[in-house]
Amino acid sequence: MPRYKLTIEYDGTPFAGWQIQANLPTVQGVLAAAVAGFSGETAHVSGAGRTDAGVHATGQVAHIQLTRDWRPDQVRDAMTAHLRPHPVAVVAVEKVADDFDARFSATKRHYVYRIINRRPDLSLERDRAWRVPQKLDAAAMHEGAQRLLGKHDFTTFRAAECQAASPDKTLDQLDVSRLGDEIRVETSARSFLHHQVRSMVGSLIRVGEGRWSPDDLADALAAADRRRCGPMAPACGLYLAAVSYG
Amino acid sequence: MPRYKLTIEYDGTPFAGWQIQANLPTVQGVLAAAVAGFSGETAHVSGAGRTDAGVHATGQVAHIQLTRDWRPDQVRDAMTAHLRPHPVAVVAVEKVADDFDARFSATKRHYVYRIINRRPDLSLERDRAWRVPQKLDAAAMHEGAQRLLGKHDFTTFRAAECQAASPDKTLDQLDVSRLGDEIRVETSARSFLHHQVRSMVGSLIRVGEGRWSPDDLADALAAADRRRCGPMAPACGLYLAAVSYG
Repeated sequence: MPRYKLTIEYDGTPFAGWQIQANLPTVQGVLAAAVAGFSGETAHVSGAGRTDAGVHATGQVAHIQLTRDWRPDQVRDAMTAHLRPHPVAVVAVEKVADDFDARFSATKRHYVYRIINRRPDLSLERDRAWRVPQKLDAAAMHEGAQRLLGKHDFTTFRAAECQAASPDKTLDQLDVSRLGDEIRVETSARSFLHHQVRSMVGSLIRVGEGRWSPDDLADALAAADRRRCGPMAPACGLYLAAVSYG
Repeated sequence: MPRYKLTIEYDGTPFAGWQIQANLPTVQGVLAAAVAGFSGETAHVSGAGRTDAGVHATGQVAHIQLTRDWRPDQVRDAMTAHLRPHPVAVVAVEKVADDFDARFSATKRHYVYRIINRRPDLSLERDRAWRVPQKLDAAAMHEGAQRLLGKHDFTTFRAAECQAASPDKTLDQLDVSRLGDEIRVETSARSFLHHQVRSMVGSLIRVGEGRWSPDDLADALAAADRRRCGPMAPACGLYLAAVSYG
């Protein structure tokens, strides 16, 4: 029973998220259909991160288990053919041990959030970044972001519908940098709560606008109160960039 | 009669090119409609480069002349509102002298061509770059590209329908560089022949594949024969990146 690790890229715009749902276009659904299309097998496509509707990936990871033995490059090329015309690409395939689990073996997840800080609407970057018209101070955002690092109760930045057993998470990285009119937020952790990245970004905007000090952000975290969160950033700016293992 | 210089960005995918045409969506057409929408005036939107269908811009320049005097930021914000929902953005507006002409005052045009060198189809970059599956040697492409610099008869790289009076052009820059699986071709000249950039890129691919040596490329140029051109690169990878004046 060969097992394959798939590295996956997608434009999340036309999908109702990663997780398969009846009668709705989902990334997991088109991947499962492509696996069935080339192999004739019904395989569960188990992903490292269940991205929400409109969220993109440049480095999502999933695993599948098949009965027939294919070479990894055969799987990659067959997936390419069977994924058309969906904006989903399997960019790398490797054989992995039977105990590899894309979700449970992951040691770190890396997300990027892209903000375009300008007044005019987006054209080429439409649905690929969040346009924020008011001038943002990226250095202040970065300073504030450092106050969220480490192990905390992240209830403030957690969706009401989050199903995690505990609100305690350890945030390893939350870097904010500006290049021209683009502000990138790069963050990593073993795992995140539902809507945690978009909630943190939405709150960082308040710091960037000068409405909150870095201390205000730290206070919002310490309050462990969802009502202290800034308005959640939209899905279109968020990318699952990579997943680390081992 | 105030005159305004507009810096314009667009996703060329849904448009039949820059130049206005009856019953077809064009960039110039939606810009003229937006000018009419906010000002009530019928103004000619005169662009620096007439990009083809599917070609993008991050720095197209156009000028308009109006009878009423608006502040540049009013023009920018009004254009933003009236351009919706088209993927066209006026990113900067400035007042210019009456003798400024976006096309005839331009001293240099800068284009970027984006190639993604990988086997899997594109997802996030679909329609925004050209996927080339065979492995390309970007260093060899750059070496070959240098043989095209300077003043030459560019007939080899000129569309049959090109209306320029002469095939002689002076190419100032043609740089090829690789970053990961992306190969960027950056080129600049006072002006280009019709399809010149896409024809040069298509021919550079032959060098990148190892089918042509840099000398073969130089020979193709010297032949001044359209039949010596490589297959033309598609529109989706091409961006009008900037236009220089003065």
